[in-house]
Amino acid sequence: MSTDFVHSREDRFSFGIWTVGWQGVDVFGSAVRPPMPAERAVYKLAELGAYGINFHDNDVFAFDATAAERDERIGALRKALEETQMVVTTATTNLFGHPMFKDGAFTANEREIRRFALAKVMRNLDLAAELGAKTYVFWGGREGAESGGAKDIRAALDRYAEGLNLLCAYVREQGYDIRFAIEPKPNEPRGDILLPTVGHALAFINGLADPDMVGVNPEIGHEEMAGLNYAHGIAQALWHGKLFHIDLNGQHGPRFDQDLRFGAGNVRGAFWVVDTVESGGYYGPLHFDYKPPRTEDDEGVWVTAAACMRNYLILREKVKAFRADPEVIEALRASGVAELRTPTLADGETWRDVRDASADIDTLAKRGLAYEHLDQLALEHLYGVRR
Amino acid sequence: MSTDFVHSREDRFSFGIWTVGWQGVDVFGSAVRPPMPAERAVYKLAELGAYGINFHDNDVFAFDATAAERDERIGALRKALEETQMVVTTATTNLFGHPMFKDGAFTANEREIRRFALAKVMRNLDLAAELGAKTYVFWGGREGAESGGAKDIRAALDRYAEGLNLLCAYVREQGYDIRFAIEPKPNEPRGDILLPTVGHALAFINGLADPDMVGVNPEIGHEEMAGLNYAHGIAQALWHGKLFHIDLNGQHGPRFDQDLRFGAGNVRGAFWVVDTVESGGYYGPLHFDYKPPRTEDDEGVWVTAAACMRNYLILREKVKAFRADPEVIEALRASGVAELRTPTLADGETWRDVRDASADIDTLAKRGLAYEHLDQLALEHLYGVRR
Amino acid sequence: MSTDFVHSREDRFSFGIWTVGWQGVDVFGSAVRPPMPAERAVYKLAELGAYGINFHDNDVFAFDATAAERDERIGALRKALEETQMVVTTATTNLFGHPMFKDGAFTANEREIRRFALAKVMRNLDLAAELGAKTYVFWGGREGAESGGAKDIRAALDRYAEGLNLLCAYVREQGYDIRFAIEPKPNEPRGDILLPTVGHALAFINGLADPDMVGVNPEIGHEEMAGLNYAHGIAQALWHGKLFHIDLNGQHGPRFDQDLRFGAGNVRGAFWVVDTVESGGYYGPLHFDYKPPRTEDDEGVWVTAAACMRNYLILREKVKAFRADPEVIEALRASGVAELRTPTLADGETWRDVRDASADIDTLAKRGLAYEHLDQLALEHLYGVRR
Amino acid sequence: MSTDFVHSREDRFSFGIWTVGWQGVDVFGSAVRPPMPAERAVYKLAELGAYGINFHDNDVFAFDATAAERDERIGALRKALEETQMVVTTATTNLFGHPMFKDGAFTANEREIRRFALAKVMRNLDLAAELGAKTYVFWGGREGAESGGAKDIRAALDRYAEGLNLLCAYVREQGYDIRFAIEPKPNEPRGDILLPTVGHALAFINGLADPDMVGVNPEIGHEEMAGLNYAHGIAQALWHGKLFHIDLNGQHGPRFDQDLRFGAGNVRGAFWVVDTVESGGYYGPLHFDYKPPRTEDDEGVWVTAAACMRNYLILREKVKAFRADPEVIEALRASGVAELRTPTLADGETWRDVRDASADIDTLAKRGLAYEHLDQLALEHLYGVRR
Repeated sequence: MSTDFVHSREDRFSFGIWTVGWQGVDVFGSAVRPPMPAERAVYKLAELGAYGINFHDNDVFAFDATAAERDERIGALRKALEETQMVVTTATTNLFGHPMFKDGAFTANEREIRRFALAKVMRNLDLAAELGAKTYVFWGGREGAESGGAKDIRAALDRYAEGLNLLCAYVREQGYDIRFAIEPKPNEPRGDILLPTVGHALAFINGLADPDMVGVNPEIGHEEMAGLNYAHGIAQALWHGKLFHIDLNGQHGPRFDQDLRFGAGNVRGAFWVVDTVESGGYYGPLHFDYKPPRTEDDEGVWVTAAACMRNYLILREKVKAFRADPEVIEALRASGVAELRTPTLADGETWRDVRDASADIDTLAKRGLAYEHLDQLALEHLYGVRR
Repeated sequence: MSTDFVHSREDRFSFGIWTVGWQGVDVFGSAVRPPMPAERAVYKLAELGAYGINFHDNDVFAFDATAAERDERIGALRKALEETQMVVTTATTNLFGHPMFKDGAFTANEREIRRFALAKVMRNLDLAAELGAKTYVFWGGREGAESGGAKDIRAALDRYAEGLNLLCAYVREQGYDIRFAIEPKPNEPRGDILLPTVGHALAFINGLADPDMVGVNPEIGHEEMAGLNYAHGIAQALWHGKLFHIDLNGQHGPRFDQDLRFGAGNVRGAFWVVDTVESGGYYGPLHFDYKPPRTEDDEGVWVTAAACMRNYLILREKVKAFRADPEVIEALRASGVAELRTPTLADGETWRDVRDASADIDTLAKRGLAYEHLDQLALEHLYGVRR
Repeated sequence: MSTDFVHSREDRFSFGIWTVGWQGVDVFGSAVRPPMPAERAVYKLAELGAYGINFHDNDVFAFDATAAERDERIGALRKALEETQMVVTTATTNLFGHPMFKDGAFTANEREIRRFALAKVMRNLDLAAELGAKTYVFWGGREGAESGGAKDIRAALDRYAEGLNLLCAYVREQGYDIRFAIEPKPNEPRGDILLPTVGHALAFINGLADPDMVGVNPEIGHEEMAGLNYAHGIAQALWHGKLFHIDLNGQHGPRFDQDLRFGAGNVRGAFWVVDTVESGGYYGPLHFDYKPPRTEDDEGVWVTAAACMRNYLILREKVKAFRADPEVIEALRASGVAELRTPTLADGETWRDVRDASADIDTLAKRGLAYEHLDQLALEHLYGVRR
Repeated sequence: MSTDFVHSREDRFSFGIWTVGWQGVDVFGSAVRPPMPAERAVYKLAELGAYGINFHDNDVFAFDATAAERDERIGALRKALEETQMVVTTATTNLFGHPMFKDGAFTANEREIRRFALAKVMRNLDLAAELGAKTYVFWGGREGAESGGAKDIRAALDRYAEGLNLLCAYVREQGYDIRFAIEPKPNEPRGDILLPTVGHALAFINGLADPDMVGVNPEIGHEEMAGLNYAHGIAQALWHGKLFHIDLNGQHGPRFDQDLRFGAGNVRGAFWVVDTVESGGYYGPLHFDYKPPRTEDDEGVWVTAAACMRNYLILREKVKAFRADPEVIEALRASGVAELRTPTLADGETWRDVRDASADIDTLAKRGLAYEHLDQLALEHLYGVRR
């Protein structure tokens, strides 16, 4: 591939250990790649120029590892991190893989499971803090139901909130410099998952004891599985001051969770995602959460990881060129895009001042917005046929 | 049809004037039914035993009606309401039909449109208050975009909030006994609509100046267009204390907005919708927002209206029988559904008490939840083969 | 559950061995149930009153079984079949589970894989014939692509056809009394799968050397994943004389492949599915292809299997009652449903006789079809509130 | 916009008169643009450099036009065609707009409507032949149902086939040089439409009396509404020799019919669409069937029309560069893409030669396909960062 678009650690690209480490097990087939120790992922990602990583506890050590095995595995990871200067930006807990979590963790009907899940999170929070993670993600993939009678949704939200409240208290009392980020998903593996979209998660946070400690970690694919506009979703999260983390990948609309490399999937959407991310207000890592397809061997895995970063850089250059293009600036002006930033009321006005507002209705009805011209300019920047 | 399932005014069934009045204009074809004056809808719905109505300003009088025409039309509506004792439970504003609103109303880039839209709402709030409506709905169907550059989403949310804040102030200062309810929709007629799901609307409300005055009005079809579980959505709204109104209808998943009569569409979902509505916490009318298909003449219109109410009653009887069925009660117990209401921590416990919680992992991994038995019981109640 | 709706072998209910045998492995979690030998599935399904089974080769013996292991496993299956008098209605080949098939089997780019796949099918055809299967299914779950350059679609269809042509020749020349049935699916596990709907498969069959030997095996869930009406799909297959087999289960629209038990999912759709199956022209088994959710233990597995059969019987009784209901018969007449069976041309007419056909346009424009009344009757039969 | 990518008549770009002429009426709002006489569309499209047009009868004259009005309107169209040298590549009939067609045309339950519909088509076939159209499209947008009892699907397919058979006879006996093309669509405006995908239409054609006269006219948006891969769909149509016409536009997955300009929507998909169209076997016009959004005034309408053509040229240049790129050629080779063109059997081989085919299973299981490298090259051509 061409040699421009070279990223550096300043770009703050990060990867989940489980992304490049995915062995390719799906509902219909078995593993196509051997297990990858976490430290190998670190060395390789460092080689590719990534900045940081994210991990589930069980990406590093097995669910049923002995203390000695756990220590050995964490030791290998720590050594790799030190040698590579890779940053642990984020961590999370695997509360979905083991059969005990088949009905959820924080919202399992069985109380013993809920208590165990909280303990499992706290243990990994200690490790996350020790390794320097600043964000801790919750993806409640098994918190949901296939049928309407199985789950008392309001009770489930009570328990979900109880769990997060407890963990906020734990982090605060331990003095950890960690914030939480909820990752919404509409379905799969459960028929319906609680907090299915970025909106539901943002709303839920307002019901917590310490809403300031909790934000969202929206994933492109998860929102697109609900046919939602991801750029709009993160823009609303930014509006609420809650975009703590992002999961970049690719998806083709409502279907199974494809977890394509960033750039593949909704290409037009990806342009506006990068435009939104770069528009200010987001300070987290540029994190990729995808799965190298089963068609790929180990070499293919690293091709996809490199491509995620490269595609972000390509799109970043494009959105910058788009925003700087004089014809775009003129088109934005013609469409009145910036006019929306002007408050509807002038300073000091109240409803009384608009109570009888009239308008030149015929003129306004006829006036075009010229959005298609503007969007065509954007598309041509995406195509790379404007410079 | 059979004579059981007779509803009464106590059931608080209400209809939008625009539902039975829909003439059948769509993107591909012209009107199949003549215009229906609002008062005719009132008389006919009263005859069918409905309790109340909901209306857009322009369901009663034309967008460009003169003052005299407006008065005449409102007079006819008022007379019909008085004669039938039908209640105006709800009102709303048409901010989407006229070409001037093609780029939205509260979030139109053009400020003059935004001011005019606020005036239009205030005028209709006066009418709504006069007619006794307690809920005022916002469906921002044109607040959105087809392309990423057209709309500054954060500015749009600022203007949306500004508009609602102003209207809250207006209602408060006028002393109206009215609350607002936001109706989310993911898309159609815009490519993407702002506040696309019940979650996004709930989150947004927390960014308003007076969040207590504003709740949500989720529509079955709109949530199902995003593949979301409507019963879960209203359960979360109830959890937040924000289910101010509901729009009942039918839809078959992600596709165009079908607005089928309630009962048609996702039948299994409808059972759980009624179960959730009847489970407590919702005090508004049972409101139908649907469209009689273009295949129907006037007689068919009233068949659909009657069927909406009848189907609700049928499902209500079923969910009551389900909840009272001893075998269901036993199945719920076996599945531990109520156990989820037990807090994860005992009284006085803190994170310290679960920090090292262990669990009988093997037993929990093997234990089945028996949700399928429970769901089969529900399905058999839905089928009417259990009594 | 209640004791009516008792099925018998005459109902010809059959199950895939892999359905009740699914261990619950998905992309996000490991097995929740132990492996189930094929013979155990046979004994248990027989106990539940099923008529027959369907199996993949590797449901019976492992991909890498030795000849002795294979014989032992087949022997155990054969013994179970003899003891239970269960019929092998159908068989199929696992061409998707092993990593060698990650890029497909008949359409793998690698020719060696294609040849091996054909051999694997022929070996299992011998077993299928020996066990008396009359239908042999092809579900080409890995025949597809995640990206546009990976697969030459026309070449892939050539190879797909070549493979089926060869297998037709094999069956014919062996004198086996077996027909083939292609099972379409739009996506998952591949990003896009070849022959994505029942329509594509029906079209493809016309490009084969021996189209009479090949029909379709549509699955409810697979068509609903594309938002398509399954009852319409199998009606078109019947119209072409090509409905050789059916896969009954449940799904909630475009999302991951849920494989719910029959009855769950689109309940309204299931009514019309049974109505279509029972309307004549289908002579195969009533076959269930579903997955007991991961929340279920072994007992729950058998609950779901029994429920599939019971729900079919319940719906069959309902559609019979619907079709026999005098009010329905009158409603069908009023809607002119049977009029569609009258040819548009009278006997002996040609285009000349309609070249200048006029119509009473105003009357036809105003006339309603009264479909909603008819559908409400159907819904009330589904609800069980009419008898 | 930049001045390269200049199209000419040789590019054979064509437009439906109804595309640029759409006034913006939708379910929720009234017209935003004035009516556009057909001849104005012709003059303007000619000015923009289009090659041809496509029209419904009622794009030119009103449904209830008198003979004199019809002649006047056709005269104006003919004059415009002559003056501009624009070609009528295609024509079609409006069998969906008038309320009389609310239950379909060829498959309306009411026989009088079916006869009238055939007459309406024949009348317009005469005009189409006179104006030189070589393709005549059938989009049966109202041929469908909202509920299961309303339509006897097999009878409907009989009537559909009867209608097409009659029209084939008409064309043949009139000596018209016209072929038919069926345009599939899954839903909207009907709940479910007959022949919902390109596959269903291809299959149906095989049930006609004269299948050689009938092919398909797949529309990007319609296939994407079912979540299907349009490039795969037209590749299968080409495989069957049935791609008689194409409708290019844009869509974002399963939702309402967006009819975006070509290029907007699924950008990655559009690349592969052009690659497939340019790969050989398609000889029709490059036809756009889209709707300028309601946000656009007349100037915006022509921006969208020009952009459709320009985007095709841009993508054509990209796919040519992709196919010529030595690194792509090497990647295709590494992935074995061309190997799929090699028959699975060698010349003269039969099933006997593969009956016991073995394979180096471990090697094949481990071998990666390197599709991600190949797809990344494609994406970089799409981005315009490779030359």
